[in-house]
Amino acid sequence: MSQAVGQADLSLVDAYWRAANYLSAGQIYLLDNPLLTQPLAPEHIKPRLLGHWGTTPGLNFVYAHLNRVIKARELDVLFVTGPGHGGPALLANTWLEGSYSETYPDVPRDASGMRRLFRQFSFPGGVPSHVAPEVPGSIHEGGELGYSLAHAFGAAFDNPDLLVACVVGDGEAETGPLAASWHANKFLDPASDGTVLPILHLNGYKIANPAVLARIPHEELDALLRGYGYDPRYVEGEDPTAMHARMAEVLDQVIDDIQRIQHEARAGQDGARPRWPMIVLRSPKGWTGPATVDGVAVEGTWRSHQVPLAGVRDNPDHLRLLESWLRGYRPEELFDERGAPRPELSALVPDGPRRMGSTPHANGGLLLRDLHIPDIRAHAVEVAKPGATTSEPTRALGRLLRDVMVANADARNFRLFGPDETASNRLDAVYEASDKQWQAETLPVDEHLGRQGRVVEVLSEHLCQGFLEGYLLTGRHGLFNCYEAFIHIVDSMFNQHAKWLKTHQKLVWRRPVASLNYLLSSHVWRQDHNGFSHQDPGFIDHVMNKKAEVVRVYLPPDTNTLLTVADSCLRSRDAINVVVAAKNETPDWLGIEDAVLHCARGAGIWEWASTDDGDVEPDVVLACAGDAPTMEVLAATALLREHLPGLRIRVVNVVDLMRMQPDTEHPHGMPDREFDALFTRDRPVIFAYHGYPWLIHRLTYRRTNHANLHVRGYKEEGTTTTPFDMLVLNDMDRYRLVIDVIDRVPGLGPRAARLRQHMQDQRARHHAWIREHGEDLPEVRGWTWQF
Amino acid sequence: MSQAVGQADLSLVDAYWRAANYLSAGQIYLLDNPLLTQPLAPEHIKPRLLGHWGTTPGLNFVYAHLNRVIKARELDVLFVTGPGHGGPALLANTWLEGSYSETYPDVPRDASGMRRLFRQFSFPGGVPSHVAPEVPGSIHEGGELGYSLAHAFGAAFDNPDLLVACVVGDGEAETGPLAASWHANKFLDPASDGTVLPILHLNGYKIANPAVLARIPHEELDALLRGYGYDPRYVEGEDPTAMHARMAEVLDQVIDDIQRIQHEARAGQDGARPRWPMIVLRSPKGWTGPATVDGVAVEGTWRSHQVPLAGVRDNPDHLRLLESWLRGYRPEELFDERGAPRPELSALVPDGPRRMGSTPHANGGLLLRDLHIPDIRAHAVEVAKPGATTSEPTRALGRLLRDVMVANADARNFRLFGPDETASNRLDAVYEASDKQWQAETLPVDEHLGRQGRVVEVLSEHLCQGFLEGYLLTGRHGLFNCYEAFIHIVDSMFNQHAKWLKTHQKLVWRRPVASLNYLLSSHVWRQDHNGFSHQDPGFIDHVMNKKAEVVRVYLPPDTNTLLTVADSCLRSRDAINVVVAAKNETPDWLGIEDAVLHCARGAGIWEWASTDDGDVEPDVVLACAGDAPTMEVLAATALLREHLPGLRIRVVNVVDLMRMQPDTEHPHGMPDREFDALFTRDRPVIFAYHGYPWLIHRLTYRRTNHANLHVRGYKEEGTTTTPFDMLVLNDMDRYRLVIDVIDRVPGLGPRAARLRQHMQDQRARHHAWIREHGEDLPEVRGWTWQF
Repeated sequence: MSQAVGQADLSLVDAYWRAANYLSAGQIYLLDNPLLTQPLAPEHIKPRLLGHWGTTPGLNFVYAHLNRVIKARELDVLFVTGPGHGGPALLANTWLEGSYSETYPDVPRDASGMRRLFRQFSFPGGVPSHVAPEVPGSIHEGGELGYSLAHAFGAAFDNPDLLVACVVGDGEAETGPLAASWHANKFLDPASDGTVLPILHLNGYKIANPAVLARIPHEELDALLRGYGYDPRYVEGEDPTAMHARMAEVLDQVIDDIQRIQHEARAGQDGARPRWPMIVLRSPKGWTGPATVDGVAVEGTWRSHQVPLAGVRDNPDHLRLLESWLRGYRPEELFDERGAPRPELSALVPDGPRRMGSTPHANGGLLLRDLHIPDIRAHAVEVAKPGATTSEPTRALGRLLRDVMVANADARNFRLFGPDETASNRLDAVYEASDKQWQAETLPVDEHLGRQGRVVEVLSEHLCQGFLEGYLLTGRHGLFNCYEAFIHIVDSMFNQHAKWLKTHQKLVWRRPVASLNYLLSSHVWRQDHNGFSHQDPGFIDHVMNKKAEVVRVYLPPDTNTLLTVADSCLRSRDAINVVVAAKNETPDWLGIEDAVLHCARGAGIWEWASTDDGDVEPDVVLACAGDAPTMEVLAATALLREHLPGLRIRVVNVVDLMRMQPDTEHPHGMPDREFDALFTRDRPVIFAYHGYPWLIHRLTYRRTNHANLHVRGYKEEGTTTTPFDMLVLNDMDRYRLVIDVIDRVPGLGPRAARLRQHMQDQRARHHAWIREHGEDLPEVRGWTWQF
Repeated sequence: MSQAVGQADLSLVDAYWRAANYLSAGQIYLLDNPLLTQPLAPEHIKPRLLGHWGTTPGLNFVYAHLNRVIKARELDVLFVTGPGHGGPALLANTWLEGSYSETYPDVPRDASGMRRLFRQFSFPGGVPSHVAPEVPGSIHEGGELGYSLAHAFGAAFDNPDLLVACVVGDGEAETGPLAASWHANKFLDPASDGTVLPILHLNGYKIANPAVLARIPHEELDALLRGYGYDPRYVEGEDPTAMHARMAEVLDQVIDDIQRIQHEARAGQDGARPRWPMIVLRSPKGWTGPATVDGVAVEGTWRSHQVPLAGVRDNPDHLRLLESWLRGYRPEELFDERGAPRPELSALVPDGPRRMGSTPHANGGLLLRDLHIPDIRAHAVEVAKPGATTSEPTRALGRLLRDVMVANADARNFRLFGPDETASNRLDAVYEASDKQWQAETLPVDEHLGRQGRVVEVLSEHLCQGFLEGYLLTGRHGLFNCYEAFIHIVDSMFNQHAKWLKTHQKLVWRRPVASLNYLLSSHVWRQDHNGFSHQDPGFIDHVMNKKAEVVRVYLPPDTNTLLTVADSCLRSRDAINVVVAAKNETPDWLGIEDAVLHCARGAGIWEWASTDDGDVEPDVVLACAGDAPTMEVLAATALLREHLPGLRIRVVNVVDLMRMQPDTEHPHGMPDREFDALFTRDRPVIFAYHGYPWLIHRLTYRRTNHANLHVRGYKEEGTTTTPFDMLVLNDMDRYRLVIDVIDRVPGLGPRAARLRQHMQDQRARHHAWIREHGEDLPEVRGWTWQF
């Protein structure tokens, strides 16, 4: 398939590259005079010079060469810009190829559009300096480094005809998530998935330091990349002519190899894991920019990272340097007098959606197909009486997810990701529908490993998150299951995805994508066996800082509510859903129809557990959110019902945490009137909450009855112990809740005082018993529910 | 130096290993009958079986072999347990060697102590199942995987005589932070630092899946490790006799090589970066445990990850299997009738503090020396009048840190870590005192790189955090400087360190260590050039969830307050200090003496900015926390002073955010009376806060005047724009604050109404101007302060 690339082709690639470089530098500097039709003057220069030049010529180089092979071989390529701060490069290229002007008709491909392209860059009211959601063709911002390769693999899964070209900066390559991502080739199937072409760009420097991978001997770098399982090819140098020839040659070889690997795999040749090719591009930082400025080297050093000439507006020497730099690209050869790219350049532009700025894969909503979700009632548990039976909520969810996999098998557009915790989180029914995808070696004793699969398990939360983000943004569906405590590992990735979605929602041309769904199990109240390091419910707090339009948090208390919540999360769009659920045997509280109704409301009174006969004025409200708090509130209610039968208790359960906020703050928020109707205007409210108690205060501090709200939750006490002891350690056990009620409801009399003492005695008995026997009090273990 | 290891030595190592394995299994299972003096019966078995057997025999194997070389060569070794869930191993070994009983005299080295050792493990009121702070000899929990190697390198820096043996699990090896950590050898200096011996433990499986590195061909693994810069040696097999011989041989070679490398480097031979040795230990998971249970393979598979025999109390077959498993270690040969380890075993125990459970390096407070901190007054800026001059706060801090480096040069116990942002954060004066440590290749154009250095820069927040944690826990001092937004990358590492410190504080034998200091700069209000992805102040919220005894947050508004805060952070112990500070030119508000006083109070009235003449009843309180909010509040005050001269304004500045909490919640918390005196009981309070506004509500919801508190802060609006536009986008600009005051102070009359309109006009002018000119309004740029 390979063929020698002609000199004419390479001249065209070079012209295209020069055009992109010109347009990139123009964005950083020029307010006006975009075609340099006049001598460059200070008033043509932006007052604030912002942007990153250093990485940009290398990105332009790769983009131009990819255009050649896309065009020559009719490839579908998605471009992932690891050094996403090189925004000018992607803006330049998408404008050159026409994608940008089609997306933004107010930035046409002529002099006026070029002026606008330049002016808007890093300009107030304009476009950001990074490869942000505003940039057509992008699924990856790259401002926070580390996730490019994981995103690329996520995009390639189940996209057999897609090649994802992923530029990895040598700075980014030092990060943990990127370092782990190289091994993603142990999962990608050459038959049913697309491929990722990593292009490690060694331009030698980060902001102010050399990059590690650029400063190890060639043999060490080569061993490293071979150790990662790749077959690296090197394109190294600084002479453009030689570099063009070499890059074209290597790119042809690489595409040949990829197509051979895919052909063999798809012809059913059961080969070993392929050794995918990759490219190492070693080129100067700030290539083709000013070589020296004020007597110090700039091109090829860290000094070209951002703006190589900083004093252009005030320093005539810098202005002259800038003009000669820009004119060095010979813009008059590249753009006609109207400012449009000359027609000969268009010979390098791929057709329509093959242009990397126009690929529908980068606007995944265009490709998104609704999931077929089987009726959750098939997986519901029968609930004759609340609490009469128990079940494992996540196990039921696993069966639902299994059936989702079956129902969407043909579309191949749903995946489950997890860091080696899918079975631990009791979702293992999914293995009935799918293997775990695995391209590394296997042994006879292994179970559920296959070359293809809907389940991806790798002990890296970063990879799980990155894969899923890439998968969703290219128009598919998925869920990430994780231990609750360790989801904090991806706090920062969550931030970036939430920021991406916030902007995405505002761009009409970006079509809605499936939501990012987290299932957090093995949570703080059920990590008693692993101890303190595994006990942390703070991800919810972290999530709540992001835009209300983007984030949702659900705390289903039992199996049927979990199924209901999962159903709606899988159908939702453009959001991030956090679901925290139990995996252990949990009492079944609601039948499926009640569960559907309750989850639709998001929060409501459980009359069957209450003793206020629907009174608008109960003596106390016992509220709960989360499976463990719900159980304790209901147990406390039972104790109170038995010992203080006259007490009018209202039990409120909250599934959708966002309902706690005012409706002015969140689309799911509850109006004050409704909130007052649930929580009363003046009665004591004891709220048992899954996580850190102050979050409930933060959500409700403007509510009428906030002064009477008393919240119990996790207060960072824990160790290896029993589940009930965890509750006692954090003052959220049933005995403590009864005491809280007695302390807050006035005038309960001597009977209540005796009950209070009894509860204190029970807590003391618990402490003594558990240290002696290593398990909970018999009455806790043998508790039965009577409603 | 190497010598063949005699058969007698290996028999001793094997006996020691069997003893440790016996003690490990005993901890998981036995409530009583520790020496199996009676036939094993159900009542001897714990009611809840918790613990991780799978990794434990491998850890015991390494520990026993290390004992041999420590003893033979008088080495100082610190053991870092990557698979920290293998708690039984470290508990067993430290008990065997006597360290445990010296630390905990109530667990003596006899049958009663053994019974207690077994019983307390994973038992309520006992000890956690992991290598938690309670375990002598540990600086690393290992519950959340990924940080062992970074901790190990942190411990080795500036400890030239220390060898840190770091077991890396093959599960952990899949994580991003661990994958990045291998490259830490590009920083470690063989002359002035100690060394790290990574022991990659391939036992093949994680919880439920094979491990990637155990399932790639040998050549690929070997290339990978050589690519990381190591010289790997392999110890592979399952026959204990052969494995002992091989491990002893390899360990001798490895120590020889390390000593040769160090000797050459220290003799001044200017060699290239050394190729440090490392060990790959491939042994069965659950080695020596039950081979098969109920007909399925357990030893050598994922099924031995936790408790290989789950039904011991109820299933007589399992009980029998357990008994034969335990007796297979021949405990009667290992322990005397009193239950003490037999004297012949002690021949393998290193002397005193050379025992890995007794090394002072794992109880760093024992080695901690106070930092010499030069008088901050030497770096203070002169402040003739508030706001008359400007300075760059972090630049002044850089000079202080430089002098700290100089003052402690001999002790070599202070380091600065940063992800390539030290110069960007304007701390670059430190390079006058120290190079950046760098062992990779250099070029003539490079600046400030040296084989040794007090500054470590690597583009991985995970590595910076991990290095610093390891450095601090071994008794040194340091600071981590980072862009504010990207510190979220280490949220989860912060969690684990905070949890470690909480427990550490309660253990009297653990001596206080230096606090972990974060300097967060290039913060949300000053990342206008990089845009939305770089704008996130939420780390403070994250930090606030941890125990009050551990966390502190400071928001110094100018240079002299930053110096003051830094001084106290560097002196503090056992805490985590978060300091958020500006790097840009910032008005100087307080002279150094005022700054010292103000920071000691943590929050106070700025009389010179107030117009209430010290009145106890001002019309409004304008409060601020953070440099940008302080500037806006003072600008708003100036506008109000000019236009509404009769308005009595009190300006309150908060440096120590923890003062906002009640004194019942945090040791720095303010009593209500004091809070009321600052914020009044009933006047409107407009609070401009650096981060997400709801945090201030969360901290103050119980305060008298909370209903009148109105907070402005970052509400997740941002892009590439100007600093002032960032404030306008988030409604925290001076004009908006003036409007807030007018809207909340009743009865201000028509003049106020006109001012309000003027402020709205200014905001409209801003919007138009900035989009036209790309820079801020002239009156904002040319603002001058008059107090």
